[in-house]
Amino acid sequence: MKFIVTKDFEELSQVMSQYMLKHMHTNKERANISITTGRTPVRGYEILAPQIKNKTYFKNVHYYIFDEFWYKNDSVGICRASLDREFFKPANISDNNIHNLDDGNVDTFDEDIQKSGGLDMIIMGVGTNGHFCGNQPGTFKTWDEKTRRIDRHTNKIIEDLLEFLLKDDLHSNDYSRIPNHYISMGPKTVMMAKSIVFIMSGKEKAATVKKAFFEPIDTNFPVSIFQLHPNVTVIIDEDAASEVKELI
Amino acid sequence: MKFIVTKDFEELSQVMSQYMLKHMHTNKERANISITTGRTPVRGYEILAPQIKNKTYFKNVHYYIFDEFWYKNDSVGICRASLDREFFKPANISDNNIHNLDDGNVDTFDEDIQKSGGLDMIIMGVGTNGHFCGNQPGTFKTWDEKTRRIDRHTNKIIEDLLEFLLKDDLHSNDYSRIPNHYISMGPKTVMMAKSIVFIMSGKEKAATVKKAFFEPIDTNFPVSIFQLHPNVTVIIDEDAASEVKELI
Amino acid sequence: MKFIVTKDFEELSQVMSQYMLKHMHTNKERANISITTGRTPVRGYEILAPQIKNKTYFKNVHYYIFDEFWYKNDSVGICRASLDREFFKPANISDNNIHNLDDGNVDTFDEDIQKSGGLDMIIMGVGTNGHFCGNQPGTFKTWDEKTRRIDRHTNKIIEDLLEFLLKDDLHSNDYSRIPNHYISMGPKTVMMAKSIVFIMSGKEKAATVKKAFFEPIDTNFPVSIFQLHPNVTVIIDEDAASEVKELI
Amino acid sequence: MKFIVTKDFEELSQVMSQYMLKHMHTNKERANISITTGRTPVRGYEILAPQIKNKTYFKNVHYYIFDEFWYKNDSVGICRASLDREFFKPANISDNNIHNLDDGNVDTFDEDIQKSGGLDMIIMGVGTNGHFCGNQPGTFKTWDEKTRRIDRHTNKIIEDLLEFLLKDDLHSNDYSRIPNHYISMGPKTVMMAKSIVFIMSGKEKAATVKKAFFEPIDTNFPVSIFQLHPNVTVIIDEDAASEVKELI
Repeated sequence: MKFIVTKDFEELSQVMSQYMLKHMHTNKERANISITTGRTPVRGYEILAPQIKNKTYFKNVHYYIFDEFWYKNDSVGICRASLDREFFKPANISDNNIHNLDDGNVDTFDEDIQKSGGLDMIIMGVGTNGHFCGNQPGTFKTWDEKTRRIDRHTNKIIEDLLEFLLKDDLHSNDYSRIPNHYISMGPKTVMMAKSIVFIMSGKEKAATVKKAFFEPIDTNFPVSIFQLHPNVTVIIDEDAASEVKELI
Repeated sequence: MKFIVTKDFEELSQVMSQYMLKHMHTNKERANISITTGRTPVRGYEILAPQIKNKTYFKNVHYYIFDEFWYKNDSVGICRASLDREFFKPANISDNNIHNLDDGNVDTFDEDIQKSGGLDMIIMGVGTNGHFCGNQPGTFKTWDEKTRRIDRHTNKIIEDLLEFLLKDDLHSNDYSRIPNHYISMGPKTVMMAKSIVFIMSGKEKAATVKKAFFEPIDTNFPVSIFQLHPNVTVIIDEDAASEVKELI
Repeated sequence: MKFIVTKDFEELSQVMSQYMLKHMHTNKERANISITTGRTPVRGYEILAPQIKNKTYFKNVHYYIFDEFWYKNDSVGICRASLDREFFKPANISDNNIHNLDDGNVDTFDEDIQKSGGLDMIIMGVGTNGHFCGNQPGTFKTWDEKTRRIDRHTNKIIEDLLEFLLKDDLHSNDYSRIPNHYISMGPKTVMMAKSIVFIMSGKEKAATVKKAFFEPIDTNFPVSIFQLHPNVTVIIDEDAASEVKELI
Repeated sequence: MKFIVTKDFEELSQVMSQYMLKHMHTNKERANISITTGRTPVRGYEILAPQIKNKTYFKNVHYYIFDEFWYKNDSVGICRASLDREFFKPANISDNNIHNLDDGNVDTFDEDIQKSGGLDMIIMGVGTNGHFCGNQPGTFKTWDEKTRRIDRHTNKIIEDLLEFLLKDDLHSNDYSRIPNHYISMGPKTVMMAKSIVFIMSGKEKAATVKKAFFEPIDTNFPVSIFQLHPNVTVIIDEDAASEVKELI
């Protein structure tokens, strides 16, 4: 596990963009990467977009959505819409290179990825409850779970979903449109990636960084499993690193 | 995960020897491997010994003991003694190339391995209770545990030890000499190996093969964690494969 | 460049078989290897055949013929016939896994190999004039030459061909059937292989070993180019190593 | 061989900086790279410097000078001085991470690099006469030549040196100070690098690009040898690509 501690969020965004480009420039036929929504990557995407836009030498880079949900009656998922807004549109990525998750492909998604060569890199944030992708505590029983549907009535996940949805500026906080399920890659899906990159920023993530990478592996703190992965890079700013300074 | 199904134990032993040689012939400065005691590898070692004995081109191969215990008053551990008998002596491996586990190096063993380049391969059997190396169910709480001491009074491990010791032909079933602890690489130690090979033979292992690799990952069936490793080869004979024929 | 010096021809044959098995056991979808005719590999093939015959776990191993010629009116090439006799038949390799060279595919052979993932290993002998595959001195002008036809009237190659053909036990030294051309992978084809293995045996090869790997790279001694390849293993017996003892 | 065609010099410089960062971000203990002087990389270094300056996560990146000469009485070489000015000073690279070539280490330089893990990347320009590093046509006889001294009176190299020196703004065109020799990595040194990157810009390099990568390998056009290397990336702008559009 490699830690990169940056001075601030701007530098974190820069290093994140360097890591994405590192994996996009490949001598293989195809690069498969999976990238995150949320606030942490936004500045990184802004740095990246002009370096990627309309560059034919990146036409063999494929993007896999790692979790997804839909407002009732919406055909485009919330995560896809967010990535469109923050990255795919500004970078003018072709639809052919973007692989959505949906109810039709959920059961074959992991296999489809493997057939296309496997994920070369996945870049994720981490929630303060230890979730990665849509793997909230309680949404999986064992570490071998793959891409799957997670039902609204599973447990308290619905509250988490609600909280997320209510924060969304583009929607009118219409409770009647809250979805009954979402889809997420599972712990096994992500463990199969060749390279895993985490980005975490700010004091409010400091305890999470410590718990994720320096405390016992526990299904109740899902991200902890990546202590067992051979190729993990954690990009954090000084604030997020403040509780692990002696440990890295 | 790759499965190799052999006709019988003889062919399994042959393939095991091919895999060991595969990792011993390296263009790197050094190959680090860790190999198992027990009955399953014995014929494989017999096939290997004359191909390895006194060959200077294997002088950069290093062997790491993965678990160990000592009869009271014995200086040589039971596992080392067994490997000496079955492999190291017949193959005339230099003492300089054999890395014992002991109370003095237990806390630095994982770090020492990483400094020497990491394990290139570990070859293990699996107990019907799902144990690998000395990782009996109940001997570790979380998957991040490394090489460590396991105390006799932890739980029912003492019975397992006793059972093992009583089977040993070379000792006189002297209960007073039963050790108070043993040492074993942990789940994390093994997950860090670049390549993992399992050997399992016979009808009595058929249910174990299924549970290990096709049922949920569970600390109560320790070997199941390797469903998350990117490079696992399972060498099994037809009997051991009998419950997973449709799955591989 | 790695040198493995064996006591004698028997051990050389054993190590050659170990190297072939090393590359045949792969976690990739497919292994592509190219192997040599001649006397040097014969004992190795004998060791290998029973370890490979009818083993379904080797069904993803593909074999590429690296040079070929045909007696007039023969449909099967001399090299293919030799490999059939010494290896493919005894090991019962499926025709689907053997890729012949012929006048129809000569121009696309290199590209076909690359599309199938590239050669993982090529195992070759070396002539005392420095030739490898059919790359006799004078049959190529520059190192970038690929798989190609070589015409009988190019230069003195015809004499070399004749000499070869006359040694063949299975044919009646009928000069009228000598071919007008042959086909061979070129220096570039072989340089693209991920791993190159040479086998050389006997006092009569001692000067060749030195000239090949310790004297200047020269198109007049074709094998010398592999001094520039990043992954070469030279398996030689003590006799063949006798002039390079101080250098390796 | 992978070609990246950029719109213009600015984009070429951007991609060059992306490739350098790709190899500087490594999970290995150490990254060894070798970079070029000249006009082509200058803008790339300008883009890179602020992304590298004082970043502790790049402290394991080591830089190797690939050729060098000295004005008589100067202790610092001309190439080192140029890299200091264009990159090392602006990026504040520690002296401990810069490995100069000099008369004292010329004979062990290749071996020193191998002992430190080998070159991960070398980034070079190409002269219109096909030279790379200091490998002007006529300065080496065979492709296996390593890092070595090249004498002023070898042939016409002295003219090339003079031309170079006279262009240098920082010196007073004092002929009496022209060196009697220079030092350069050889073809073999560079062929041993894991990854080779070329940068070439402008119409005046268009014929060179074609000759280098699409015409026969020839010691009289030294850069052509890299047609045999397994991992080459050629970054060129549209002008430099103008004669190879149909070929890539």
